[in-house]
Parts: sequence; structure tokens; C-alpha cells
Amino acid sequence: MAATINTILTGASPASNGKAPSDALSGVKGVGNPHHFLAGGQGALPQDSRGNPWTGDYVFSSGDLVEDLTHNFFLETGARNNKLKVYEMVDHPAARALTGYLLVRGGVHQIAYARALEHLTGADLTKLFPTPRIPTEKIPECQPHIERGDHLRLYRFSPSDYQELSAVFNGPNPETGEELEVFDQAPEGVPPRDLPPQPAVFAPDYAPEEIAEIAARLRQGAGLPKEPTGMVADLQEATKRSTKKATSRSRSRSK
Amino acid sequence: MAATINTILTGASPASNGKAPSDALSGVKGVGNPHHFLAGGQGALPQDSRGNPWTGDYVFSSGDLVEDLTHNFFLETGARNNKLKVYEMVDHPAARALTGYLLVRGGVHQIAYARALEHLTGADLTKLFPTPRIPTEKIPECQPHIERGDHLRLYRFSPSDYQELSAVFNGPNPETGEELEVFDQAPEGVPPRDLPPQPAVFAPDYAPEEIAEIAARLRQGAGLPKEPTGMVADLQEATKRSTKKATSRSRSRSK
Amino acid sequence: MAATINTILTGASPASNGKAPSDALSGVKGVGNPHHFLAGGQGALPQDSRGNPWTGDYVFSSGDLVEDLTHNFFLETGARNNKLKVYEMVDHPAARALTGYLLVRGGVHQIAYARALEHLTGADLTKLFPTPRIPTEKIPECQPHIERGDHLRLYRFSPSDYQELSAVFNGPNPETGEELEVFDQAPEGVPPRDLPPQPAVFAPDYAPEEIAEIAARLRQGAGLPKEPTGMVADLQEATKRSTKKATSRSRSRSK
Amino acid sequence: MAATINTILTGASPASNGKAPSDALSGVKGVGNPHHFLAGGQGALPQDSRGNPWTGDYVFSSGDLVEDLTHNFFLETGARNNKLKVYEMVDHPAARALTGYLLVRGGVHQIAYARALEHLTGADLTKLFPTPRIPTEKIPECQPHIERGDHLRLYRFSPSDYQELSAVFNGPNPETGEELEVFDQAPEGVPPRDLPPQPAVFAPDYAPEEIAEIAARLRQGAGLPKEPTGMVADLQEATKRSTKKATSRSRSRSK
Amino acid sequence: MAATINTILTGASPASNGKAPSDALSGVKGVGNPHHFLAGGQGALPQDSRGNPWTGDYVFSSGDLVEDLTHNFFLETGARNNKLKVYEMVDHPAARALTGYLLVRGGVHQIAYARALEHLTGADLTKLFPTPRIPTEKIPECQPHIERGDHLRLYRFSPSDYQELSAVFNGPNPETGEELEVFDQAPEGVPPRDLPPQPAVFAPDYAPEEIAEIAARLRQGAGLPKEPTGMVADLQEATKRSTKKATSRSRSRSK
Amino acid sequence: MAATINTILTGASPASNGKAPSDALSGVKGVGNPHHFLAGGQGALPQDSRGNPWTGDYVFSSGDLVEDLTHNFFLETGARNNKLKVYEMVDHPAARALTGYLLVRGGVHQIAYARALEHLTGADLTKLFPTPRIPTEKIPECQPHIERGDHLRLYRFSPSDYQELSAVFNGPNPETGEELEVFDQAPEGVPPRDLPPQPAVFAPDYAPEEIAEIAARLRQGAGLPKEPTGMVADLQEATKRSTKKATSRSRSRSK
Repeated sequence: MAATINTILTGASPASNGKAPSDALSGVKGVGNPHHFLAGGQGALPQDSRGNPWTGDYVFSSGDLVEDLTHNFFLETGARNNKLKVYEMVDHPAARALTGYLLVRGGVHQIAYARALEHLTGADLTKLFPTPRIPTEKIPECQPHIERGDHLRLYRFSPSDYQELSAVFNGPNPETGEELEVFDQAPEGVPPRDLPPQPAVFAPDYAPEEIAEIAARLRQGAGLPKEPTGMVADLQEATKRSTKKATSRSRSRSK
Repeated sequence: MAATINTILTGASPASNGKAPSDALSGVKGVGNPHHFLAGGQGALPQDSRGNPWTGDYVFSSGDLVEDLTHNFFLETGARNNKLKVYEMVDHPAARALTGYLLVRGGVHQIAYARALEHLTGADLTKLFPTPRIPTEKIPECQPHIERGDHLRLYRFSPSDYQELSAVFNGPNPETGEELEVFDQAPEGVPPRDLPPQPAVFAPDYAPEEIAEIAARLRQGAGLPKEPTGMVADLQEATKRSTKKATSRSRSRSK
Repeated sequence: MAATINTILTGASPASNGKAPSDALSGVKGVGNPHHFLAGGQGALPQDSRGNPWTGDYVFSSGDLVEDLTHNFFLETGARNNKLKVYEMVDHPAARALTGYLLVRGGVHQIAYARALEHLTGADLTKLFPTPRIPTEKIPECQPHIERGDHLRLYRFSPSDYQELSAVFNGPNPETGEELEVFDQAPEGVPPRDLPPQPAVFAPDYAPEEIAEIAARLRQGAGLPKEPTGMVADLQEATKRSTKKATSRSRSRSK
Repeated sequence: MAATINTILTGASPASNGKAPSDALSGVKGVGNPHHFLAGGQGALPQDSRGNPWTGDYVFSSGDLVEDLTHNFFLETGARNNKLKVYEMVDHPAARALTGYLLVRGGVHQIAYARALEHLTGADLTKLFPTPRIPTEKIPECQPHIERGDHLRLYRFSPSDYQELSAVFNGPNPETGEELEVFDQAPEGVPPRDLPPQPAVFAPDYAPEEIAEIAARLRQGAGLPKEPTGMVADLQEATKRSTKKATSRSRSRSK
Repeated sequence: MAATINTILTGASPASNGKAPSDALSGVKGVGNPHHFLAGGQGALPQDSRGNPWTGDYVFSSGDLVEDLTHNFFLETGARNNKLKVYEMVDHPAARALTGYLLVRGGVHQIAYARALEHLTGADLTKLFPTPRIPTEKIPECQPHIERGDHLRLYRFSPSDYQELSAVFNGPNPETGEELEVFDQAPEGVPPRDLPPQPAVFAPDYAPEEIAEIAARLRQGAGLPKEPTGMVADLQEATKRSTKKATSRSRSRSK
Repeated sequence: MAATINTILTGASPASNGKAPSDALSGVKGVGNPHHFLAGGQGALPQDSRGNPWTGDYVFSSGDLVEDLTHNFFLETGARNNKLKVYEMVDHPAARALTGYLLVRGGVHQIAYARALEHLTGADLTKLFPTPRIPTEKIPECQPHIERGDHLRLYRFSPSDYQELSAVFNGPNPETGEELEVFDQAPEGVPPRDLPPQPAVFAPDYAPEEIAEIAARLRQGAGLPKEPTGMVADLQEATKRSTKKATSRSRSRSK
């Protein structure tokens, strides 16, 4: 979600051109959420719709497996309701695309907790679905994800993690009857692309080009290639490349 | 830290033996922190020493690189002070071992932010070290980590991530003069071992043996091996094994 | 619950005997929860185990009937877990009696929400029971309530309110198979008895006897009987008496 | 107050007509208070003007009678100020009618606490009235309530509760000189009418007609009359009716 | 800052003319921040941009001098960023003048903490300046303060307080090279002028002229001069006058 | 209050003697309030008995003079109750001396607000006194302050500030009948003495003697006398001395 918000905010600040702030920013008046503007550096903040921060009290861990699963099943139910409301509140295509995606994926998480409860206790929660009764099949922004099968899949980060997922996440999707599946790799779009640096109009730090110059100099001093290796920007590409070379200052652990 | 707390709490509840709770738990009176006992299922909670939860307001992201680095440098400074105070407040060997480790590692993070500021602006913060003036060389629980070189290392999760770290994290440790280094693998002890399930005395859920039985049945139904693959318990072992087999219900993504 | 706490605290302050506070209260040092002592006038406060107050954010009203029922079903599940933990943390017989009662009654509320979901969607949640698996039949303090049938009953305040309850609350108790029933009157013990006034040792207000004297004078001035009518102390008795007399200063509304 | 807010919000959501949410709700953009829209199911939430929830810390119970009365007298004073400000901030006739009513009634509560202090200590607070100096006689929305005498009355829920009120609440209204009186019945408008169900546009639950159908079926299964008995909607009517019939599944308690 | 906000709000309420509130205030609808309007009596409140109050948790006092100075240096750095953002968000000339002033003065405080760290540890933080890189020399509202030398001065309240400031606050301003100086008197504009009383439109208290009349009568009764001595309005003037006269009811302490 | 708490905490940490922390502090286990120990540098923190910080929401400024005075009168009433409870909870002589002082002084503030309300509206609140009915004449720690007349005096910081106080604060003390008086100077004990630096056992900063040495060197470099001028420790002495000398780096403002 932060990646989407940051993408929406990219380019939202006018160029400063070395002018005094007051000249460069004449169109910025009337900010909707002043706290976000002041506290967030043109990026997402972990806050709710009141500006209240995420808190550790949201972590629920009772030590009772059935209670924890019941809790999580409820949370996913409530989350889908909220996602639909957000969908209705926004116009920005990226925000609508995000909520369309989240509605589909949240439904998968809901099924995962329901199925776990079913396997553990025998209680059949499938009659509750869809809950809330959100017609994802009528929401345009949900379609690409349904067509790709994302309403059926739980993703692993790699083929070697969470191998026992399929013991719990299986059987038919309660809404469509299609078979659920565990998927061995993160979906397309992971990891997020690096976003271009933004001219720091309001907090006039080093300009993006200055940072780039300093970074290039530091990389060269450290024996790294002149070009950024782009780790965060493209994990798969980097993974391939990273097997071929070694950075000068790091060494592998040998027991 | 949660892994350490959970380890300390493992075995802290008496066996229930099918008796009524009141019989089984005669020694549990006088709980120090009643909220932790009520809300946490014999595990760590993300709270401070007041029981106040971690909040998203702790996320600081001003958008100004120098300001953010200055903030983080300060945070690591304050954190080391608090770690030393925690060290003095606790007797449990595992708690002391944890704070000894954190004091050494926190010092590395402090250096990382100071060095980044130095590379970026030329400001030499090394004269501030050690700050606070904590004599880690006199604290017994710090020694194993210093001997292993953990006061000099920044760890990557794998050889392929964060490849440009060494452009910033380099030069001498301001306290010892030894050369800093980026390390290509997580330190020993990562990932945490799975802790044995605890008899749910206070929240009488399925007994550990019942859960094990249900899990075995589900694994078999899903075509998984009868024995748990132990993913979370031993990541490296699992990684080796995972390349050899495929789970029946999951399939790889093909474009 | 407040009535129980207040009952436990009744008589907890020593008599002041007109002496200076420091003389009268030598045994009061070492108060466990200083905030409760300072803020609460020897009575219950609406706080959790951290001393954090109840908040309106606990009110959940999404507008979606199934979601709200799912939420409440979960809440009752978590509440039973917490009640059992409280049961284990306390020694005071009144506190144990209270939690024994709450465990039985909370189970009824849990069934009510589960049954409502079942009637509405067909989803059978009875396989989840008991959840958490609390053996109320082994807890001594639960027995009087089970024997009276309180594990089967939903109470109405009077024969004329919430008349449609029985349309939802019916069928067998999922744990015992006995038939659920709606009960037309509040259970014994409602309303709470007036507790005797406490000598205000720490906040030396009017002594109880002064208050009684002022109250008697005011009642007489208002044409009320000399003896208190005891409204709060005994609702049923008062109801009977109230039909026979009229207070001098109040008159009934006539349209 | 919640009843008023809910009444104002009734009908605020457009009909969904089975269309996808995005089609049905084109006019909903630009919601003033996004948190209320997300968290509240088209109904009131117990929050202040910042969206901060009501908290149990508002409960004041020092154990000292004079202090508690002084506190409550102050609270009513401040509340009237805030009510006037709310009055000025709103245009909606129902909101203005509500604040007009609250200004009159809040004045009565203020007098009640002042008179109690006077009876108890002899301190005459009448010279403070009106405080704040709000000219209720000039505010149109206050007139119906003043004409009905609501600036003089304290209501009991029934002739049998709080019978000793008149010992404290008596004497002249400090602003008008008219005699105060205790009234034996709730004012007109109590209890609130049931509001018609709203089409759950944003949280697409069962449609109102589906709920009605399910409810009718459940009532019949429970031996209740086909028509709702309307308990909440009309307490007096229901009270009359309830003495004549008994519901099939409920039975009275016999000792 | 409160003085500036109060000045901006002075005159913001229309005259009431003895009319009912609803008539006098037709232009007040659409208040931006309803909580500030309700809770603040047409004056500043100690809140942040979310309406969250200042809290004592902002007080940082670790007991470690270097840590505390590092913390304060960071705080001033972050504060300047926020001030610039506020500058960009506001149009009101008084608000812009205030932030221009604060940007200059905040820079002085930043230098003070950096210089203290330098004197104590030898660490040279001057290379970090300006941080954030705010071009105060290009911001019109900063110019009067730079011309007066306010970017170089730390003020004492009087020649006799904080006499050792100059031991720490000295040397060149890192941005301009000009010599820093400790100044023996509060800058012009201290203390703030008394603002004229506002007609209490929304909380109709005594009118300003009534208050003035009551105040004059009380002053005379106390043997004070008929005219207010204007203490808060002009501290220097008052200081001069106060040495010449003595008020009738107060006497100096004699040991 | 902070001065008293800091005095009590002075000397509470053992000497470190250059030993590792674990050796020096063997007696520190079992800290009552862990958060205070961690966050406060052996000094007071602005928190309540729950560890919750002071908040700006405690600032009450409605804009309505009578409402604000009523609020403050209530606050002083509640504060005296709490002070008595604190008195009963503590054994430390300095803590008891502090609360004895505060009980006397809080009573004066209570009278000040009551008298202001009386002058403004004519309402006589004296019949409420003492409220709560605290027998200060029986509390030993209150006697020195009553004997000195501190139950009658409102202090000004100097003869030239708040000159109009006596117009409001006058007439008899409602409990003793003695005449109230405005006093032209702060009471003995203002300003607080500088407390000796504490060895920073838990946050091993520079030792007190190192700080003293650095401070001496800085003072000399700044042309200040070798000995500290002791400003904070003795305001009156400093005031006398400060008129005779000028510090080298500061100059007076000339218009």
C-alpha cells in the first residue's frame, strides 16, 4: 500500500529551481491533511483515517489457536468492508486499482483462516461467504486479479519457505468452487520499483543530482560498480547478477 | 528480542493434566504485569516498559536525507542508554545475554548512521564515540559478540540484497580502529528455532498432542511428508531440502 | 462487575475517629495500583489491566449485520479466555465467584451470536464450541449458575421488552444439548444492593452520619417519608410500594 | 443524540439497485470526516469533534460527595457553552433542534447540581446563573421546550424509580423563578423510533427485504406473531400489549 | 506563537449586538477545525496539526549530557523542516512573519546545541549546516531578523540570569562566519501586548464593557489606581512605575 | 515538585568506581516503576500515577471568564483531595513535607478562584470551605506553612508584576477569618538550589569531575570567572553580583 501511495505522490511537488520556497510553491495551499504534509516526506505514513498511528495493540496473540484464527477471520471480514468504502471514496485510478487488488487478495486471506478453522474444528464457515457480500465480479478493478487467478492463490516468498501451507490452504474457493492453490513465488510487481528521488521543495535537502553524484563517488570508493546495482528496484534481476560477482569489502561467512 | 522473551517464557506454565484450572495453577498468583499476562499468550508483546504499544508515530520519514540520518543516529544513541539500564534491571541470564548482544549491535548501527552523515556532509561524528560512554569491553555478556567481530559487521540477509551497503558502511570503528565490514549472511541464530508448544493452561485450547495429531493428518491429506519440514525452525536445512522435492498442491508460476 | 468490586472494597478503609489522616491510616502504605487509589473513590473505575480507560473505539457498528455478529462472536470468545486468566490471578472469593459467573454467562452470549449467524446464513458454528475449551463443569464457582440453568438463559429486563429474542435465541446449547430459553425477568441479585457509606478517610468529606442527617432533613422538607424508600437497594420492593403513594412535589404527565 | 444523528443520516445513501458499487455511488466523493464514514455504519459513533473516542477517564468518582457535585456542576456549565457553539456551527434543522433541546435540558442538570450543593453546604450558587449567559429565551429552537416546561423538570423513568429526587431537586429555577418539579415519566419521544433499514451500499450485506424475510421466518418458527411487536419502536404500546400475551419459548421465573 | 495566533484571531468574531446567536453569526459556518472552535476560546491551544495535545512525553531528560544535547540538536533540525512546511502552507501575513522569525531563531538554537557538543567532545558538526538546507537569505520574512542580527544572538531574560551562557555559545555562525553573541535582554516584542477583549458571541459571557466596569470597581475597592497598570501589556513601563508606588493591600516581606 | 523529587533521588545511585555496570549496581533490582527508571535520568518526569504524560488537553481556556474560573475552582478542589491521598501513600519525609506544603498552598489557590467568582457574580462560595474537608490544622507537615502565613498569601515574582492581584485576592480566608494578602516576593526556597551532579552509573557519560573540568576551561575561554556564578542556585545573590560585572562576550541592547 505504501508503494502505491508513494507512487501517487511522486511528482506531486513542483520543481524548486533554486528559488525561495515561497515562489516555487504557489499551488500548494489548502492541503487536506496538514499533519501528513508536515510529518511525511512526500511518502506514506502508517496511520489510519484519523491520522492515528498503527499501534502494537493491534497485535493479537492470545496463545489459543482457535481464538487467534477466529480473530483473524473476523479482521479480514471487517477489512474487506473498509476496502470497499475506501474504493468508493477515491477517484485516483491508482488508488482504485489498489483497492480492487486488495479486495481480491483480502478474500483469499479470509478463506485461509476459515479453512484453517474448518480443518481444526470441523466448523463449516463457507456459508458465510461472501462476507460482506461484495460483488468483486462486478468491480472493474478486481477483474485483472480474478482473471490471473489471484482469488485462489496464497503466495510463498520462495519454494523453500512455509512449505506446509498446502496442508491448510486447500479445497474449493467457497464463492467460485475453484480449487485453491499455494504459489511458490511472489506475484508480479514484487519487489516495488525504486521511485525517482523528488526535489526536496519543502525540506530543501541536497538536490537529487547532488545525492546521485555523492552516491557514485562512494560506490567507486568502495570498489562497487559505477552504476547502481538496483537491488531494491528489481530483486530478480539482482539475484541473477549477485551470483556472478562479489563486492570488494564484504566476505562470506565461513564456519 | 521476541524470540528471547518467548524462550524465557517457555515452560513457565505448569502442566494442566486435565484438572480444573484452579487446581493446576496454584503457584501463579502475584503476576507482576497483569496486562501482559492477560493479553499475551505466554509470548512477547510489542509494548514498552509502561505497557504502551509500539506506535506508527515512531516511524520517522521527513523526506530530508540528512535530517533522517541525524534522527536515526540520535535514536541509536538513546537506545544504547536504555539497553544498559535494562541490563542493570534484569537477572535472568537470557535477558542479560540479549542486552549484551544488543549493546554490541546497537553500537554498529550507531556507527552506520554516523558514517553515512560523514560521507554525505563531511561532518566527523567519531569524536562523540562511545556515546553514551558504555564500556562494552567490561560487560561480560558483550564479550562473545566482540570476539566474533560483531561490533564491526553489518549483515545482509543474503549475498544478493542491499549490495551497495559497503559504499557507506566502511572505514574504521571509531572506538577500536578496526575495519568495518559488510557480511553476506545472517548471523548464527537466524532464523529462530520453533519453540515447543505450551500446554494452554489458562486458555485451554487443544492440547499440544491434539494439535500435532491434527497437523499430521492434514499434512498427509495434502500429500506432504508425515514429518514436519521444519521450515521456520531451520531455514538453511529447509532450503537444502526444498530444492529436492515439490509439494503436491503447489505449482510454480510460468509466464 | 463494578458492584462486585465495590463490595470487595467496602470496609477497606479504617475508621478515622476524627484524628489527623496520618494517624488513622498507618496500614495503607504500599498500594498496588496508585492511580486507582488516587482517582477512584474506593470504588470501581472503567479501566483495563493497564489502567487504560474504556474507550468509545470499542463500539463496533459497521452497518453490516453479518460482520457485526461475527465481531461480537469473536469478542465473546476472547472475553472467556480473559475471564479464565483473571480467575487464575485472583484469590478473593468474591472475585472468583464473579469470574465463575461471568464464564457461564459469557458462554451464553457466545451462543447467542453464533446462533444468530446460523439463522441468518446457515453457517454452523457449533463445532467450534467450547471455544476456548474451558471446562466450566470442573470450575467450582461455575456450578451454582449451571445448576440454576444460567448457561441456557438469556434474560429480558421485563416481560415487555425485547420480545422477539426467542426468534433468534433458541435450539440446543452446543455443549450440553439442553434447550436454550429466554427468561422474562432479571436474575436474582438485580438490582445491586446499596452499599453502606464509607468513612471518607482520605478525602475527609462529611461523615456518613452527617450525610444521613442532611438527607433526612431534606426528605422531610420535601414531604417524603422519613425513612429512605430504598429505590436502588431493592427495585422490586420499591416497585410495589411506589404504586400506593405519590410524592408531594411530583405530578404525572397528562396529555 | 445518537438517535438524532442516525435520523439525519437515514436516507443518506443512494439505492444500489444491484449495480456495482462504483456505479451506484457517484455522488459520495469528498466525504468530510473519512474515519466516520469508514468506521460507522451510517450511524453515530461515540467520538468528539477530533474523532477521539469517549473514554472511561471521563468518569469522575472521587468518593467525596461535595467534590463530585462541584465537578458535575462545572461539567454542565462547560457543556452548555459547547452546545451553543455546536448550534452555531450547524445548519441542519434536526441538528439545531437537538442543540436547542440540549441547551434547555443542560440548564436543568446545572440547576440540579447547584441545588444539591446548596442543600448540602448552604453555598448559594444561584448568582452564577445563567452561566454561560446563554439567552435561551431568544433561541427559537429552545422555545418549544421552555413552553412545555422542560426547563423546570427532572424526569424519572417511571413512578417507582429515584423516588427521593424531590428532596434535592426543588425550589425556584434561578433564572425564571418558577418552581422546579420532578416528573414521573420519560418525556415524549422516548423511546426512539426504529429507523428503517438502509440499503448497505458500501458494505453490501443482505438487502433490507432479505433481512425482513429471514426475520419473518424466524419469528414464525419461534411461535411469535408474524408482525414485529415493535418493542424498541414504541415502548408504551408494547408495554400494554405485553401484559396480554406470552411468547411460546419464554417462561417466567418461579422461585 | 500563541501570541501570534491570538492576534490573528482577534476580531474574528462578529459583534453580537444583543441579538440571539443565530442571527449574529451567519457567516461562521464551515469551520475548518471544529475541535479548535469548540474547545478554544478564540485563542491558541497547545496542539499539533492533528489536534493532538502537547504531551509530557516530549520532555527528554536521559541524565546523559551528550545524549540530551544530541537529542536537542536533532529536534531543532526537524523543527526547522516543519517550520518551512508551515511557511508554505499559510497565506496570512502574520503567520508567514511568525514562521520567518522562527526559522531564523530555530537556526540559532541548532547552533547552540551543536556548539555545546563540539565544546564537550570535539566533534565538529558545522559541516552539517545548514540542515535542512533552508535558504533563509532568500525568504523575505526572514530578512528583518537577519538584519537585526537575530541569527547570531541568544537572549537572556535579564543581565543576571544564565550568566555562563557565553562559555558555550560562542565562535562563528557556521553559515555566515559572523561571531555569535549572548544578549542581555529579551528582544523587542517581549512581553506580548494585551489583546482587546472579544465579544463572547458563542459563549455569551459578560460583555467586555461589563468586565471593564467590574474590574474598575474592584481596583478602586482595593486602593489601586483607576486605570489598569497594564502589567502584562508593557513590562518595562510597568517596571518603572512599580518602583514609585505601593499597592495598599500588599506588603513586602521582611525577614 | 520536580525539585523535591530530584532532591529525593539525589544520591540514589551508587558510585561506579570505573567498574563494569553489573558490578557496581547489585542493589538496584526490583525497580518499582521501570519506565521512570528507563526514561528519566534520575530526575522527575511530567507524568501521572499511571505513567501517563501531562497533556496539553489539560489546558482549559473556553473564552468565557466565569466558566474558566468555575473550572479552576473545581480543579483546585480535586487537587487537594489527591494531595491528601498522596500524603497517605508516602513515607519519605521530603515527600510528606512537599504534600503538606501543597495542601496549604492549594487551599490559597482555591480561595483565589472562589473570591474571583464572588467579585464577578456575587455568588458566595465560602460555605463550601473547606472542600474537601481536610483538617490542615491537624497535619503536622502543614504547620510551618500555616505559622508563616502561607495559607493567606498569593505571591508575586516581584513588586512589579501582576500588580492588580489585590483587586481580586482580598477579604477574609473562609476557614480562619484572617485577612488575605498579596506578597511581593517569591517565598523562601525559590529558586531551587542546584543539585550536585550524579555519577552516571547507568548511562555512563562523562564523570561529574570531567564535566566540571570542561566547564572550567570553557568559562575561562569565555572570559568568565573561574568559579561558577551559580545563577540557578541562588537567584538573589546572583542578581546582586550581576549588577557589578559584565560578561566579556555579551553586550547590552541599545536602541
